[in-house]
Amino acid sequence: MIEKIRLAKNVHALNDMVAQQNRLLFKEAGLTVVNMISSPGSGKTSILEALGRQMGHSLMVITGDIQTQIDKDRLEKAGALATQIETRGSCHLTAHMINAVVKHASFSGVRLLVIENVGNLVCPSSYDLGEDEKMAVLSVAEGDEKPIKYPSLFIRAAAVIINKIDLIPHVNFDMARATGDIQKLNGNAVIFKLSCATGEGIDALAAYLNSLKTARPG
Amino acid sequence: MIEKIRLAKNVHALNDMVAQQNRLLFKEAGLTVVNMISSPGSGKTSILEALGRQMGHSLMVITGDIQTQIDKDRLEKAGALATQIETRGSCHLTAHMINAVVKHASFSGVRLLVIENVGNLVCPSSYDLGEDEKMAVLSVAEGDEKPIKYPSLFIRAAAVIINKIDLIPHVNFDMARATGDIQKLNGNAVIFKLSCATGEGIDALAAYLNSLKTARPG
Repeated sequence: MIEKIRLAKNVHALNDMVAQQNRLLFKEAGLTVVNMISSPGSGKTSILEALGRQMGHSLMVITGDIQTQIDKDRLEKAGALATQIETRGSCHLTAHMINAVVKHASFSGVRLLVIENVGNLVCPSSYDLGEDEKMAVLSVAEGDEKPIKYPSLFIRAAAVIINKIDLIPHVNFDMARATGDIQKLNGNAVIFKLSCATGEGIDALAAYLNSLKTARPG
Repeated sequence: MIEKIRLAKNVHALNDMVAQQNRLLFKEAGLTVVNMISSPGSGKTSILEALGRQMGHSLMVITGDIQTQIDKDRLEKAGALATQIETRGSCHLTAHMINAVVKHASFSGVRLLVIENVGNLVCPSSYDLGEDEKMAVLSVAEGDEKPIKYPSLFIRAAAVIINKIDLIPHVNFDMARATGDIQKLNGNAVIFKLSCATGEGIDALAAYLNSLKTARPG
């Protein structure tokens, strides 16, 4: 057991070292970087498509998937720059995977880099990728008890998007319970209520991401 | 890298040894055992509640969660026997965790044991727990492209439940694409279309699980 813990600590220490390299590289390139984490099917890609239609090539998305280039194709079609990392079985992105992509990338004209993590509410939250902040996405179809059942992400997320709010009439989702639990876990989290079907909340999210960019020292 | 692969192999070899012990124990107890795997919020617990209302104490559920006893309480209220494993951060159940629970358990009157894995479409699929078969659950709210994006589970699942079909009018889900991709990945998978909101498909699922029990040699 002690060996197992030591190994886990080493894996994370190595990851954090590379994450720090990524962070410096992002700072030099003048980028704001968000690590977006959720279950599979919470709607991350749809949210990023909506942002891509507004931001064009000032938005770059690095999208992590076990397999397929489906998300990359969708994002490029929406107008954003997109790079895909196929993790080939791994359930989360690591700082090394990001480093391999960004160390030779051109960020000319890019202001916001979103790393769309592998769909998984558990493992990705414990790997620093060098981002400025983590953003959690929770679809109302997943249920209002998910923040309290999967706290590790919600504790670490600077912002939480409650997505697919157009489905609320058709599912069992108590918004007050969900937001209350998120606030109990993390009193500083900014909460957005969004629907990519109706467009509700997209402008507020875009304004928030824009404020992150202007708030950065340089 | 070689060390990393060796370690992963050792972890799985140890897991498989204990899974085999579990399998013998389940056989002696005359149980059929299903390992149920899905994303968070696909509706596993709601399906098991519906089965619990039909089967009462002949159904036992071992439910794995990162944190909280919410699912156990729901399942007992529905009439099933339930035991909770809080994984305290781990994103999947292992054969060891199951062994610790089942080696001293009483299965008197129990015919079907369902292990409700941690909500995660990736990691749980590669850990044998000693089950007779894996069952995947996919909610239509997650999107029709999930089988092809997260193939490891669908390749291994003997049965796939497509859940929340009552939401189809409100989401973008192409049933023919989803079932076609599942069949391409795994031609032997039995597919169920279910809604816990309307009850559609529950009887067919219960009949299938019952047929597994009678098909077992003893």
